[in-house]
Amino acid sequence: MKILCTKNDLLSGINIVLKAVPTRTTLNILECILIDTTSGEIKLTANDMELGIETIIKGEVSDKGLIAINAKIFSEIIRRLPEGDVEISTDDSFNVNIKCGKAKFNISGRDGSEFSFLPNVEKERSIYISQFSLKEIVRQTLFSINENDNNKIMTGELFKIIGNRLRVAALDGHRIAIRELELKEDFGEMEVIVPGKTLGEISKILTGGLEDIVKIYFTRNHIVFEFDKTTVVSRLIEGQYFSVEKMVSSDYSTKLKINKKELFSCIERASLLVEVDKKPIVMNIEGSTLKMDIVSSMGSMEENLEINKEGNDIVIGFNPKFFIDALKVIDDEEISIYLSGAKHPCVIKDDDNSYNYVILPVSF
Amino acid sequence: MKILCTKNDLLSGINIVLKAVPTRTTLNILECILIDTTSGEIKLTANDMELGIETIIKGEVSDKGLIAINAKIFSEIIRRLPEGDVEISTDDSFNVNIKCGKAKFNISGRDGSEFSFLPNVEKERSIYISQFSLKEIVRQTLFSINENDNNKIMTGELFKIIGNRLRVAALDGHRIAIRELELKEDFGEMEVIVPGKTLGEISKILTGGLEDIVKIYFTRNHIVFEFDKTTVVSRLIEGQYFSVEKMVSSDYSTKLKINKKELFSCIERASLLVEVDKKPIVMNIEGSTLKMDIVSSMGSMEENLEINKEGNDIVIGFNPKFFIDALKVIDDEEISIYLSGAKHPCVIKDDDNSYNYVILPVSF
Repeated sequence: MKILCTKNDLLSGINIVLKAVPTRTTLNILECILIDTTSGEIKLTANDMELGIETIIKGEVSDKGLIAINAKIFSEIIRRLPEGDVEISTDDSFNVNIKCGKAKFNISGRDGSEFSFLPNVEKERSIYISQFSLKEIVRQTLFSINENDNNKIMTGELFKIIGNRLRVAALDGHRIAIRELELKEDFGEMEVIVPGKTLGEISKILTGGLEDIVKIYFTRNHIVFEFDKTTVVSRLIEGQYFSVEKMVSSDYSTKLKINKKELFSCIERASLLVEVDKKPIVMNIEGSTLKMDIVSSMGSMEENLEINKEGNDIVIGFNPKFFIDALKVIDDEEISIYLSGAKHPCVIKDDDNSYNYVILPVSF
Repeated sequence: MKILCTKNDLLSGINIVLKAVPTRTTLNILECILIDTTSGEIKLTANDMELGIETIIKGEVSDKGLIAINAKIFSEIIRRLPEGDVEISTDDSFNVNIKCGKAKFNISGRDGSEFSFLPNVEKERSIYISQFSLKEIVRQTLFSINENDNNKIMTGELFKIIGNRLRVAALDGHRIAIRELELKEDFGEMEVIVPGKTLGEISKILTGGLEDIVKIYFTRNHIVFEFDKTTVVSRLIEGQYFSVEKMVSSDYSTKLKINKKELFSCIERASLLVEVDKKPIVMNIEGSTLKMDIVSSMGSMEENLEINKEGNDIVIGFNPKFFIDALKVIDDEEISIYLSGAKHPCVIKDDDNSYNYVILPVSF
């Protein structure tokens, strides 16, 4: 195999597929990046058997072939090359020669045909969304998954489509995050659970442009994301997701509107005092005031925020972290909070139902 | 005590003195920042008994007094306050009230008179240098101290003045870094050892302006840095520093000039291969070429750099880290390297002797 490409194109490609190289594995070949030029293009692939990424980079192929190279060594060498054209050539013993400017490297590769190629999934049913929207949706929900849960389902996110509406949900037992998005075309009905890790890694690769499209294919066991010159294939999590619809009640006895930034920084201040004792923050909603009155072993704090309230007065306690996490990702200047009593979940949502953040209260 | 100042002024002042708050101490009062307004100005002080910092911030004092407040809690509270004016008031029981916008905090302080004030050092002999120069000198030498050495002297830097020349040196047993600077005035002779920690912390506080002056006072046991509204007092390290003059030989049998950036990135690439086996990099200097020929368990690398050589050919091995550290802080585009044999130290220096980096070779 012999190829010629620029250092920067090669490095960008490596950085994309690196996201699918497992940090620990017993299968050595998975620690490699595959360079596959059999089709005449330069395709880089990495695959940890759950998540696989391939991307095509610009360059010339003067001799077609396959080679697998240890991802860590390969990426470190390319990173440290001077700017300019890189020539990579291999021989029959899988020796890899890398030349760039005055630098010449020789490292051992592996037989590319031993590599675990990405599964060949049938690409039938797909939706289109912008890279920007996908990135936003993930940012606004992923914090609510339960990373270390024994329940595998909680480590993923629900992607559910009904007609032309995509709903993405994540929950960890204490809170739920739901985002909804309108699709350009009607899709029918579909429901899958996508691993949180896949979504996290994709977010890092997406450039995030409003005009740049991601095509998402759904199959029985896989989800495929196609964008730019990159394809991401991920296994789905098996099982039935929770009925989040049932968990988000539309009944409420108190509705309040409040400035998001003021509430956010007030809770940040309050959390400073309560985090030592691991106590909840208590919100006292009375008339047109949200009163935060915190006493802890560290000291005390008092702050009154103006609110616009409908319904009953209420005193309710929360883990401040869950409020901070949700408020961080909401872009609205003013938010609406719906409450139904000190023991019932609180819902932060907008009028369009484009987002729903449900937070369970704690007793105090 | 009662003061009024802006959040930003207060936070800047806190961030300066925080550098002298010990992370671990058995003396609780040292974990505090002292607010001292007895002179009519707002002075913040922290002191870990080796290093003490005080700084004066803008603001109004409406009631003079002293209060010591836990540095961690105080800084976290002020950091999270909204922008605007902060009012801090205390009562006879050392309760501290902090008000800013709608937020009100109440925390317990401590009797400020129990605080360990900075030592009162006689400020007689001083030099002036620019903040920029001090920051540069520290950056260009501090990496060569030996942080964990049993030899306390190696954890500090030599500050030596002869006439109008300041020499700053650091060494760790494998290398020496020396910077020299011309002073505006003649000072006589003086030699002290300044703790590396002091210099590191000062570097973080200095704004680094070419026009901003630091006044440095030397006393028997202390060094004092005065700049802007800040005073830093540090204990000196006792003892006699090594005679660095004797370690820097001016004899050489090979002198070579080389492009710094090319050498730097070549060594960076080479170090990638040798760091697995912890082997040295070997430079083969022959004619007008510096040949780097690396073979390790990871692979091999070959690179020839053009040099301008006077004197003998030579083959010499180095720990790449020491070369990388020195080349990182040298600003010259072309550097001169002086060699006297494979077992003798290598010296990188400029013609003015403004810097000298001495690196011991290793056998290979």
